[in-house]
Amino acid sequence: MRGAVIYAPGDIRVEERERPAIVDTTDAILRLPATCVCGSDLWPYRGIETVNGPAPMGHEYVGIVEQVGSEVTTIRPGQFVVGSFFASDNTCEICRAGYQSCCIHREPIGALGAQAEYLRVPLADGTLVATPDVPEADLVPSLLAASDVLGTGWFGAVAAEAGPGKTVAVVGDGAVGLLAVMAATQLGAERIIAMSRHEPRQKLALEFGATDIVVERGDEGVARIKDLTGGLGAQCVIEAVGTQESMMQAIRATRPGGHVGFVGVSHGVDLPGQELFFSEVHLHGGPAPVRRFLPELIDLIWSRTIDPGKVFDLELPLDEAAAGYRAMDERRAIKVLLRP
Amino acid sequence: MRGAVIYAPGDIRVEERERPAIVDTTDAILRLPATCVCGSDLWPYRGIETVNGPAPMGHEYVGIVEQVGSEVTTIRPGQFVVGSFFASDNTCEICRAGYQSCCIHREPIGALGAQAEYLRVPLADGTLVATPDVPEADLVPSLLAASDVLGTGWFGAVAAEAGPGKTVAVVGDGAVGLLAVMAATQLGAERIIAMSRHEPRQKLALEFGATDIVVERGDEGVARIKDLTGGLGAQCVIEAVGTQESMMQAIRATRPGGHVGFVGVSHGVDLPGQELFFSEVHLHGGPAPVRRFLPELIDLIWSRTIDPGKVFDLELPLDEAAAGYRAMDERRAIKVLLRP
Repeated sequence: MRGAVIYAPGDIRVEERERPAIVDTTDAILRLPATCVCGSDLWPYRGIETVNGPAPMGHEYVGIVEQVGSEVTTIRPGQFVVGSFFASDNTCEICRAGYQSCCIHREPIGALGAQAEYLRVPLADGTLVATPDVPEADLVPSLLAASDVLGTGWFGAVAAEAGPGKTVAVVGDGAVGLLAVMAATQLGAERIIAMSRHEPRQKLALEFGATDIVVERGDEGVARIKDLTGGLGAQCVIEAVGTQESMMQAIRATRPGGHVGFVGVSHGVDLPGQELFFSEVHLHGGPAPVRRFLPELIDLIWSRTIDPGKVFDLELPLDEAAAGYRAMDERRAIKVLLRP
Repeated sequence: MRGAVIYAPGDIRVEERERPAIVDTTDAILRLPATCVCGSDLWPYRGIETVNGPAPMGHEYVGIVEQVGSEVTTIRPGQFVVGSFFASDNTCEICRAGYQSCCIHREPIGALGAQAEYLRVPLADGTLVATPDVPEADLVPSLLAASDVLGTGWFGAVAAEAGPGKTVAVVGDGAVGLLAVMAATQLGAERIIAMSRHEPRQKLALEFGATDIVVERGDEGVARIKDLTGGLGAQCVIEAVGTQESMMQAIRATRPGGHVGFVGVSHGVDLPGQELFFSEVHLHGGPAPVRRFLPELIDLIWSRTIDPGKVFDLELPLDEAAAGYRAMDERRAIKVLLRP
């Protein structure tokens, strides 16, 4: 089968990989009609994360079940399913508490490479959620978004305790940040401030429910958020970048007692303990337990209440994955959908 | 009047200070029957915080109201009152959200010096809570504990979301840590693990409701907490020290999705963003909004349901404050009550 492989920073190739087969009795094999490139794929692409290549890439997927292991009981061949970037049993104490991304049996999908024609998904019963039927083609991008970026933005909004009566600020205008705006809207936030200086992203943020756009960053961005919130800062701030600057911007834009939900994968971040102490904010985040939200997100997409697939502004054949990475790296595309 | 003053690290003197008078129309003047030395007073005493001496010391107090400013409406001369270490208006949006320690008009009591015979308390109506009557003498130490250490331990337990069915671990066996054990007990926690290697403190922890004692620290302490919690870590961990080691011990002893309540004043702490991200814990803390809890704490003390005054294991005349600091610095005393 064809699959994307990283050889070195900036060097993505689509080549023949061995077609996956059932390894464990709890596995499922999916055929993937669509996959995509994640903002977090850019960390190794840019050499900020070490590349031990050649290594398969991709951790976002929807697919048709081709085959299941002998112990799989709820997932069946022919179903259309959505899963997340960590396989999880969905039965351990950590999963039952809603933290499937920290399941005691979790396995990273990224290591298996979802930018490919087929994918082996471990712990299929716990990991995969079937849609009511095989979806119409136009729903596929939105269901694919639920696999990571929507689920991650949603977790950011939940971690920031976005809800009725609340002012929410979103740091980061990538797909996750934009979908965090959508999540805050769905969760009933009163006011949603998107921080973005890119006109197409501002537009999408407004379409997703943002009420205000702030173009300033860093200290100036914080000052603007304070201006907009009576000098206090927002009650809820979602951080969707993962750098020192964006984390400090998020913490400083939050009022005392407010909540920061941070979902940008941390790179080179050190939080000053004393400032955090005196800021008196709540801090929660990490790899999103997307599985917790999948049933609800699939419902919202299926009923066409939300259309998160709009974050895909470039679609390419899988074979052109390298061009997709380049477009995202250069910020010419928000998010790239790949068709195997 | 007599009052404690710090001149330099290790140099505490009790000397004549000017007796405070009403400055603002919202002030009250209290006569203090009891005050005390706080663990956080040891930071400047040990030279870890810069001393710009001579400076008055002390921020914990109970007192009889002697005089009030012309705009004070609810607090009256003759009342016995308890306040906290930040004066707060208790009416601003931040106060109403329960974060009186970040009141937009807050004033630090520490700058005024509560280790003294008299104290000026700004924003008296917002800051002070009167007891039902002038208390019997044996209740005074417990009411004094409510002013900071009990309120701070309580906030730690609330921030860690201690409650029924939960396992709570407490890092730190100072007065705040011990009273966090008491708070977790009152909040209905199922299991409370006190981390202490000091026999008298272990005893008090058990008296306050601890179900387990862990003597190990650092990585070994974390391993013991995991042993006691099925390998997962505690749901709730209260950090009551403020060092890098204690913060990392708290974060690492918490299971994914669990809550760290940190109330030890941070000194030299840098939190590694990536570890925090992947730990998936909730982090909340800071200077405790003791005012939020005072009415409830006073009720519990007044009804003799709790006896937090037990943390005072040394009582000295105010004039011997220097000996009190020494005893706490050398860990010969848990907490020192001073009688002006």
